[in-house]
Amino acid sequence: MDLIKQRILKDGIVAPDSVLKVDSFLNHQLDIDLIEQLAQEFCRRFQGAPITKVLTIETSGIAMAYPVARALGVPLVFAKKSHSIKLDGEVYEAEVEYFPKRRPQKVVVAKKYLSPTDHVLIIDDILANGFVLQGLISLVESAEATVEGLGIVIEKGFQEGGHRLRNLGYRLESLAIIDAMDPATGTITFRDEE
Amino acid sequence: MDLIKQRILKDGIVAPDSVLKVDSFLNHQLDIDLIEQLAQEFCRRFQGAPITKVLTIETSGIAMAYPVARALGVPLVFAKKSHSIKLDGEVYEAEVEYFPKRRPQKVVVAKKYLSPTDHVLIIDDILANGFVLQGLISLVESAEATVEGLGIVIEKGFQEGGHRLRNLGYRLESLAIIDAMDPATGTITFRDEE
Repeated sequence: MDLIKQRILKDGIVAPDSVLKVDSFLNHQLDIDLIEQLAQEFCRRFQGAPITKVLTIETSGIAMAYPVARALGVPLVFAKKSHSIKLDGEVYEAEVEYFPKRRPQKVVVAKKYLSPTDHVLIIDDILANGFVLQGLISLVESAEATVEGLGIVIEKGFQEGGHRLRNLGYRLESLAIIDAMDPATGTITFRDEE
Repeated sequence: MDLIKQRILKDGIVAPDSVLKVDSFLNHQLDIDLIEQLAQEFCRRFQGAPITKVLTIETSGIAMAYPVARALGVPLVFAKKSHSIKLDGEVYEAEVEYFPKRRPQKVVVAKKYLSPTDHVLIIDDILANGFVLQGLISLVESAEATVEGLGIVIEKGFQEGGHRLRNLGYRLESLAIIDAMDPATGTITFRDEE
């Protein structure tokens, strides 16, 4: 999707250790016009899927997931990191290894908000090693609900998450896939998907 | 505002220790139709104010702030709790005492997203003791920007935050003010504002 690729080239900052800073438009300051257009593109790509709920995880997925849920006319649920829960009743839990060599964190969702009849679209801003998405998939599958698809704004195609999730059979739609980033020159190479 | 009061009466759960659980529609599962209407009400109340930016804080303020920023046609910035920052450059910081007797936490916003010419509307879901809002106000004032107002969905009027902020001269608009909650009976008493 050219819109997001152009914005990444214009305002993204390539930092060492495979970090791409997009905080000027996607995950600290939010460009609402851009996010609305990205939401429309997700809806176009998942048109016809019988989605009953959008699922994301705090924090930075919420603003992207909100207009998708609005456009689809379904509720939005965001999974919580366990330190912040004040939830009634039972929860589904998954362990997420955010960073290698650090202790896994729990992510939780209240059982009453995911049921076996739900068809879930999972939305997040960035996909790298895919551990967070696998945690969200695990929550949906714990509820015996159906994962209709995964919608990601920026996939770091040089890390293994997207490849692994596609191999597992999930429908993964990434609006921009980055195959290489060079912090020395700032060069960003996108995957050619057309 | 009757809409949110009715929803609190229908789906809110009064728990001990002054906790009101609204996770079925406001801060875990989100009822998008409701939130859209609350956003319209905030816009109505702050109509004419020269707002250039909406500010909230992760996590649960984001979904409420998003449609307000969209309707006003301005960017949304969410302050971060310091443990999650991956920010370039300098930040404004404030200390927030979330809970009595626990260590204050830092909240931060990148300096480049708040400037002296900004007129900021601060949005959050719940107001209790007001420490979080005071942290956000402090960030805005560190930037020598102007606080145009504070928009809150649910104010716990029996705690001191709202009273203190109004006394300080801030324009605080709460869509529902709760003056009493009884966990034994589940009774919720709203302030009569008309």
